[in-house]
Amino acid sequence: MNSHPGSRHVTLAHGSGGKAMRDLIETLFVRHFHNPWLTPLEDQARIGLGELSPGGNRLAFTTDSFVVDPLFFPGGDIGTLAVNGTINDLAMSGALPLYLSCGMILEEGLSITLLEEVVESMGRAADAAGVSIVTGDTKVVPRGAVDKLFINTTGLGVIPEGVHIASHRAQPGDAILVNGFMGDHGAAIVDARGELALDNPVESDCQPLQGLVAAMLSACPDIHCLRDATRGGVATVLNEFAQAAQVGMRLEEASLPVRETVRGVCEILGLDPLYLANEGKLVAIVPGEAAEAVLAAMRSHPAGQEGAIIGEVTAVPEGRVVLATALGGERIVDMLVGEQLPRIC
Amino acid sequence: MNSHPGSRHVTLAHGSGGKAMRDLIETLFVRHFHNPWLTPLEDQARIGLGELSPGGNRLAFTTDSFVVDPLFFPGGDIGTLAVNGTINDLAMSGALPLYLSCGMILEEGLSITLLEEVVESMGRAADAAGVSIVTGDTKVVPRGAVDKLFINTTGLGVIPEGVHIASHRAQPGDAILVNGFMGDHGAAIVDARGELALDNPVESDCQPLQGLVAAMLSACPDIHCLRDATRGGVATVLNEFAQAAQVGMRLEEASLPVRETVRGVCEILGLDPLYLANEGKLVAIVPGEAAEAVLAAMRSHPAGQEGAIIGEVTAVPEGRVVLATALGGERIVDMLVGEQLPRIC
Repeated sequence: MNSHPGSRHVTLAHGSGGKAMRDLIETLFVRHFHNPWLTPLEDQARIGLGELSPGGNRLAFTTDSFVVDPLFFPGGDIGTLAVNGTINDLAMSGALPLYLSCGMILEEGLSITLLEEVVESMGRAADAAGVSIVTGDTKVVPRGAVDKLFINTTGLGVIPEGVHIASHRAQPGDAILVNGFMGDHGAAIVDARGELALDNPVESDCQPLQGLVAAMLSACPDIHCLRDATRGGVATVLNEFAQAAQVGMRLEEASLPVRETVRGVCEILGLDPLYLANEGKLVAIVPGEAAEAVLAAMRSHPAGQEGAIIGEVTAVPEGRVVLATALGGERIVDMLVGEQLPRIC
Repeated sequence: MNSHPGSRHVTLAHGSGGKAMRDLIETLFVRHFHNPWLTPLEDQARIGLGELSPGGNRLAFTTDSFVVDPLFFPGGDIGTLAVNGTINDLAMSGALPLYLSCGMILEEGLSITLLEEVVESMGRAADAAGVSIVTGDTKVVPRGAVDKLFINTTGLGVIPEGVHIASHRAQPGDAILVNGFMGDHGAAIVDARGELALDNPVESDCQPLQGLVAAMLSACPDIHCLRDATRGGVATVLNEFAQAAQVGMRLEEASLPVRETVRGVCEILGLDPLYLANEGKLVAIVPGEAAEAVLAAMRSHPAGQEGAIIGEVTAVPEGRVVLATALGGERIVDMLVGEQLPRIC
């Protein structure tokens, strides 16, 4: 059967709801995602409320679609991105991520081998982060109606009691932290598109952050704001915080962690690392007096070794982010107006 | 600003994570979905465990992507489909559907007016069914990377204690019911594609089924199996039940409810209404002695007025569905092997 070339590619029958789809689900998804919630293949996973982690009193619920191009890049692929991206959106509320759904939209003619690589990546990333992919859906559309493969993941987690992270909680005197080098993911995708020819390719920073967040919460249970700096980068997150709390954000250019290679990519292409996408970086706003403790917790975690305090929250200018440049000047860091890089995640 | 033609179409900037995306979210999604979980615009909705309905002990969690072509059709559009489809996947576990996520993938150049129509439809469908769309994500891809607009919805509901609906629970002697005419959705989409020129267009049966399921559970809390007959139709659902429980399913052709127009469409195109997609029809397997009570409950609900008992579960042939034809013969109703109609939902 496998010698027939057609059997190595996705066909419309794989999205029919019929036999081919069933086979694909059993041989690919159930095998790589292997968990007791998915295996019954009902149209919905059923999760006992008692299976939710103790000590939590709220669910966190978040969704993200992934359309990255190319599908594979140094440091990850669309599968690792789809798992870690949604884990991180959960983790930014302080939640322990527990369950994911997986919705795939496949282009007719996609290589099954490629699909299996992606599904395997997702299974590995889920295992590594301790989450289960418990329900899914697969659609196949005719050639040309989608570019290869898009994935939606939606996540469920439980937020511990006493944790109240929210973007409007930033207040003057708070410190602004990031957990490492900015812009690695954006630069890796640009490089993977062949638009550069770097001697030392940049790897995406794609990684799950719930362990780092737990370590930070141990050091300071009263973290005010947390957000992962994906599309739009650190600058966009800070603008969102500044507007939600009607405070200012003052960054010190000299303290911004950016890799030399990424700085070089930005100079060549006229990009600003503050707006470049990350897939394993968060921005945290913490009470000023807790800043050093949170920084120490960050740096002692593998996902935060290059963590840094990059600025502070100020009373004015309300709703604005200001960068104090290395040369002693100041400039406004605004919301991104156009599109920096399409299909970055 | 609105006089600029570009402002009426989706641009890559709407997916940037920056200012244009923020504006789109606030003017479109927050306005039409209006609920307290979405409004804070955090990256995840936070749902108090105490907000979940009393009497439930399990979460139902399900995902579905919608790629229907055309986007608008008699009886609904991709928005109503995306809301009701996921509500129905929750309802088939007996769950009360509560919360949805919404992940949109938009093609650059899509009309904003069209997008707003879809979002408005989603808001209306959610209100009508008593669910809230509490978190979302929007990606924009360059022209040609997706055909107009795809939507993923993922749903959360709570399953009442004592309800144990599962596909492996079918047993000999059980009755098989459907809640009305089969194949309306499939026929409506074929017609909307302009492949036919029907005098009386068929309308999609797109509707939420949780109220019907609640009425059926009141009549018989021990419903064995429930599944909505979407892609692959009633035949596919019955094959899944037959295989999961290793029982036979015997259908009476004369009792299958099919509209005259739909029967006509099937004859013209060589389709079988048993495999045609539905978006508001369920297949129920109930203990034989409860069949009449469930049928009465069905028929007294607006979503089940044309409900019918269409067959019974048998000991043999194991894993197979058999149709007793009107002419006195028998034929096997197998799993669908090819693809009947792509992009039907």
